[in-house]
Amino acid sequence: MMIPAAIELGVELRVLAETEGMSAALAADRVGDYTDASTVLEFARDVDVITFDHEHVPQDVLRALVDAGVPVRPGPGALAIAQDKLRMRERLSELGLPVPDWARVETPAELDEFIAAHGGVAVVKTPRGGYDGKGVRVVRSAGEVGEWFATIAEDGQPGALLAEELVEFRRELAQLVARRPSGEIVAWPLVETVQVGGVCSEVIAPAPKSAGRLADRAGDIAFAVAEGLEVTGVLAVELFETVDDRVLINELAMRPHNSGHWSMDGATTGQFEQHLRAVLDLPLGGTGTHAPWAVMVNILGGPEEGTLADRTPAALAGHPTVKLHAYGKSPRPGRKVGHVTAIGADLDDVVYEARAAAAEFQG
Amino acid sequence: MMIPAAIELGVELRVLAETEGMSAALAADRVGDYTDASTVLEFARDVDVITFDHEHVPQDVLRALVDAGVPVRPGPGALAIAQDKLRMRERLSELGLPVPDWARVETPAELDEFIAAHGGVAVVKTPRGGYDGKGVRVVRSAGEVGEWFATIAEDGQPGALLAEELVEFRRELAQLVARRPSGEIVAWPLVETVQVGGVCSEVIAPAPKSAGRLADRAGDIAFAVAEGLEVTGVLAVELFETVDDRVLINELAMRPHNSGHWSMDGATTGQFEQHLRAVLDLPLGGTGTHAPWAVMVNILGGPEEGTLADRTPAALAGHPTVKLHAYGKSPRPGRKVGHVTAIGADLDDVVYEARAAAAEFQG
Repeated sequence: MMIPAAIELGVELRVLAETEGMSAALAADRVGDYTDASTVLEFARDVDVITFDHEHVPQDVLRALVDAGVPVRPGPGALAIAQDKLRMRERLSELGLPVPDWARVETPAELDEFIAAHGGVAVVKTPRGGYDGKGVRVVRSAGEVGEWFATIAEDGQPGALLAEELVEFRRELAQLVARRPSGEIVAWPLVETVQVGGVCSEVIAPAPKSAGRLADRAGDIAFAVAEGLEVTGVLAVELFETVDDRVLINELAMRPHNSGHWSMDGATTGQFEQHLRAVLDLPLGGTGTHAPWAVMVNILGGPEEGTLADRTPAALAGHPTVKLHAYGKSPRPGRKVGHVTAIGADLDDVVYEARAAAAEFQG
Repeated sequence: MMIPAAIELGVELRVLAETEGMSAALAADRVGDYTDASTVLEFARDVDVITFDHEHVPQDVLRALVDAGVPVRPGPGALAIAQDKLRMRERLSELGLPVPDWARVETPAELDEFIAAHGGVAVVKTPRGGYDGKGVRVVRSAGEVGEWFATIAEDGQPGALLAEELVEFRRELAQLVARRPSGEIVAWPLVETVQVGGVCSEVIAPAPKSAGRLADRAGDIAFAVAEGLEVTGVLAVELFETVDDRVLINELAMRPHNSGHWSMDGATTGQFEQHLRAVLDLPLGGTGTHAPWAVMVNILGGPEEGTLADRTPAALAGHPTVKLHAYGKSPRPGRKVGHVTAIGADLDDVVYEARAAAAEFQG
């Protein structure tokens, strides 16, 4: 989704794709392994800036790029925080930012102690590799993640897990911002994200009843994260709004993020265009909205026969004002294969329209 | 500009580009000569539909595609009308649609007769190859286009020129519509186009004070053209609003057109997405607007040093709410190298902002 934005800005985009046939390969110059430093260095030889569509590029590859003089945005230091949930919690706590109660636990005994101190329940996360709810488990006893303690050990050293309080939240929110190397930061409106089974299902922009204190608080937090971690590019700060009116940081993503897809159709500047502007250190674009409400709903691959393309004609016919974004991915159950966005003046209408369209595209 | 729309719709787009380094070549699968039937047939072997970004593909190439079973949209019949201004005037007159007084003139004497009958002045056009004011001349005597009569002769036969009354117009308008093979047609709002030196300079959507009778009349005309000529895809009908309150057809373009660029940022469905939907016979998208006014201003290559890219940082900084579309073309004086669109509630503000931004990008 960065390619359309690059075309309109007149930016030449080169893509290092993991495998042939990935959607990024639409414009792929090169297919190669992003974990191999020599492949990435060779690819980077005549680009001005390197950026990413995920956070999993190994630190040694990032450092090799920096050593070769290639601007890497976001930089290795910021990405190291995004890559490791324990480091993230440590750093956010150092910055004085609000996070759930947490502890680094290296043994089942330490975890059981944390559970006992937090009402008999904890959320346990593997520091690395979690995604869409994977690597996250709610437990009432360390035994439930016994095998995790074994598998996270590295190089003969015992590893550590992240234990967090189970936050009682009213809803989940996300604050998207973009920051340039020169320091300029802009924020889009605070949004509400609805998760189903640990996967983002829909996003409402702006978050209902968020104007004022709540939006200000979320904006302050996201600006502090972006500046504190020196993030460049788009940063999504996923937040909990707790039942006792606190705002806590849940996760960070240092790239265009599902919670910001609505901006492609609902805001003056979409998140992919903004990410390109930010990593190229170009002035950032306006983040005003086209309508009072925008609602984005993901289209998941399902057990139904047929592909998104098969269902597209009927779905487009029924929903002429909804914007479709198809990812060109083969469907498998639960995989995000596209999204739709509806905008308008009446929230109930917009939610209805976006959900109805997504359901029809989804089949 | 069709590539971003194709990506978002999940449509695989293949491009036959004229030469390396053309902006279309960003996604070019093939570089080849579109006037060579075997090149085009080879290119078309595994596509579902062929469409165009100009009207100059020769009829023998179009017919060869149709004979080979490739859907060509718009079809050769419609394109033949767009390719030849004399045939266009003949056909529009047959359909009873309003055009300026015109005549087919094969000799200087016939042209002088037309001039004498139209107040001593006429607009003379070469039937083919005109573009942005080229091949069009206002004359008071046939002698002023004496060489044209010589050069249009083909195969030893005398050719013909199109003579038209010099229309006294209040302003120029354009009505953009899109039509599917199955017959569905949609229209965007009627727009005003401002020409400078025969080249479109800016577009205001909707045309000020056009609501009601004027918009209805323009819509009726464009629907009649699309249906009468069986156009598929986007059709731009360029119109004169005369000082005596007539609406006359000036030119036709059977493709996304400069007068519709505003729709990319100002309407639910931009013209490039709509063109793809139409030629693929997919349901057409909504044509509602994001704001009361949208103003598009072209960025022309000028005599100034430097490129659009050089001026982009300063211009983006000054105009964060204006959308830039850079075409990736090397600048030469007068060449369209990009455009900007501003939208908003106050027309004066929107015009000011769009012009100021275009001037800054233009240098």
